[in-house]
Amino acid sequence: MSQGPTRIEMNEVAPRDGLQIEKRQVPTDEKIAFIDALSACGFKRIEVTSFTSAKAIPALADAEAVMQRITRRPGTIYTCLVPNLRGLERALSSRADELNLVMSVSETHNRANLRMTRDQSTAQLLAMLAEASKAGVACTVSLSCTFGCPFEGDVDPAEVLRLARTFADAGAAGITLCDTTGMAFPTQVAAICDEVSRALPHVAITAHLHNTRGMALANALAAWQVGVMRFDAAAGGLGGCPYAPGASGNVNTEELVHMFETMGVDTGVTLTPLLDVVAGLPQLVERPLSNQLLSAGPRLRTHPAPAWLADHFGAA
Amino acid sequence: MSQGPTRIEMNEVAPRDGLQIEKRQVPTDEKIAFIDALSACGFKRIEVTSFTSAKAIPALADAEAVMQRITRRPGTIYTCLVPNLRGLERALSSRADELNLVMSVSETHNRANLRMTRDQSTAQLLAMLAEASKAGVACTVSLSCTFGCPFEGDVDPAEVLRLARTFADAGAAGITLCDTTGMAFPTQVAAICDEVSRALPHVAITAHLHNTRGMALANALAAWQVGVMRFDAAAGGLGGCPYAPGASGNVNTEELVHMFETMGVDTGVTLTPLLDVVAGLPQLVERPLSNQLLSAGPRLRTHPAPAWLADHFGAA
Repeated sequence: MSQGPTRIEMNEVAPRDGLQIEKRQVPTDEKIAFIDALSACGFKRIEVTSFTSAKAIPALADAEAVMQRITRRPGTIYTCLVPNLRGLERALSSRADELNLVMSVSETHNRANLRMTRDQSTAQLLAMLAEASKAGVACTVSLSCTFGCPFEGDVDPAEVLRLARTFADAGAAGITLCDTTGMAFPTQVAAICDEVSRALPHVAITAHLHNTRGMALANALAAWQVGVMRFDAAAGGLGGCPYAPGASGNVNTEELVHMFETMGVDTGVTLTPLLDVVAGLPQLVERPLSNQLLSAGPRLRTHPAPAWLADHFGAA
Repeated sequence: MSQGPTRIEMNEVAPRDGLQIEKRQVPTDEKIAFIDALSACGFKRIEVTSFTSAKAIPALADAEAVMQRITRRPGTIYTCLVPNLRGLERALSSRADELNLVMSVSETHNRANLRMTRDQSTAQLLAMLAEASKAGVACTVSLSCTFGCPFEGDVDPAEVLRLARTFADAGAAGITLCDTTGMAFPTQVAAICDEVSRALPHVAITAHLHNTRGMALANALAAWQVGVMRFDAAAGGLGGCPYAPGASGNVNTEELVHMFETMGVDTGVTLTPLLDVVAGLPQLVERPLSNQLLSAGPRLRTHPAPAWLADHFGAA
């Protein structure tokens, strides 16, 4: 079996990608405590918020306050999603360390999700990359529906590469390949990640996976095997498609960290405080969340042998 | 990324491994209909029942009736678990095509689960292999806790190989490496499966995985990458540890089949009728079961684009 990098970087996206679709509007103070607790886990990156319109995403209307009041841990990069030039200005004013720009590889999904054609989005992202470059702030471009579109089905990998190259040429420091609705499968993930990273060796590739069809960890393994060393993930698997709660979210950060840890890969993240954060999520989002890893514990959490064994077999 | 075999064999274990721990004692007629429906999906093997004592596992007290009344599909191998020589005789009388014998690699787990030392179990299994050989019926030996023990923690891979070799030398046609409580991780699965199959090239290796910590499909991918081509799985992820329903069962057959199908691997199983069987499971076991793949559908199940797109952008 091919082995991947001995060290990876985890990008925790729950504060933005998770909280934006929760019914509960998490109060600013609780959000800040959540992000600070995540910082203490050792993440390389945390996607804190999105500088979007308060009307579009009321849950993230407090973007400035959150960015101002979180405690920045040295070593963690605090990123923000920015949908347009106005958002970019706000994020720069709030001293975002890095910016995340988004568009879709699929024309239909881009229109449905962003209300723009792909050409319009491309032009807008190029303008944003130019502005960010002037400010000296690194940008990652997230390409939604890289592995399939819920409207169009399969997407052409050549389109993924074309868009990735366009933004890399325009100065994007990273490209995030997003499995927006959980359509990716391992051999495809390996092939596309490999192709993009070979074509654009100076660009950092991030895998953004969803567990919609149970394949998130298998896809992460495949990405790692071809050398991907950055992963988006959400604590508790928050986020994703709201129509099937608990089933369609982002890959669980804790499961991803746990898997890599079992394989001896350094994630930078400490699992124990992360599981504490995960245990607090039902209170944060005010809905029940079942969590396999939290129930079972890390793989080496052992249990006492049944007491009757000693009676039956004598002392061991 | 290393590619595995283009064809695998699926062994559906829900009728035995799943139903044995359900609260509802499924009536014989419903069990038979369940198994017949599974047969129609094209499984290479179905583990139908266990010839154990009715007192130990009341849910499987109808083993003879079930074996007599199922419709045997040509091409499917109907296997039975047998815990001892008495069970083996009963299984042979019921014309089982193959037998599944079980013991644990872990001393503590073997004592707790089977109430015997590993030496006692080994002796018993060797006697059973001799009897089965006389009858000309193939046996697989399932080694519980191959990838870790919930009481002892890590187990020595040398013990796995020692026991596998013992039974292979005694005529076992197959060895099943069982991740009984979901402690396996991908690089470990690859290493152990690779080691055992290289050491015993004439023996068929089956991977029996649980999803306790979310890694079942990643582990299956790893096993496949080193050449494993037989997989145990349970429809709906039934079975496993009853203390955390839905979280700790066997790997879901439908998710495993779906993953291999997306990768172009021939599983012999047709997904559509299998998903119909899975949809009927809550009625069979009389408890709710959430199922990601059933909710989301296969990866290329697409949705109509929002109607407002045409108004907003004009005809495509």
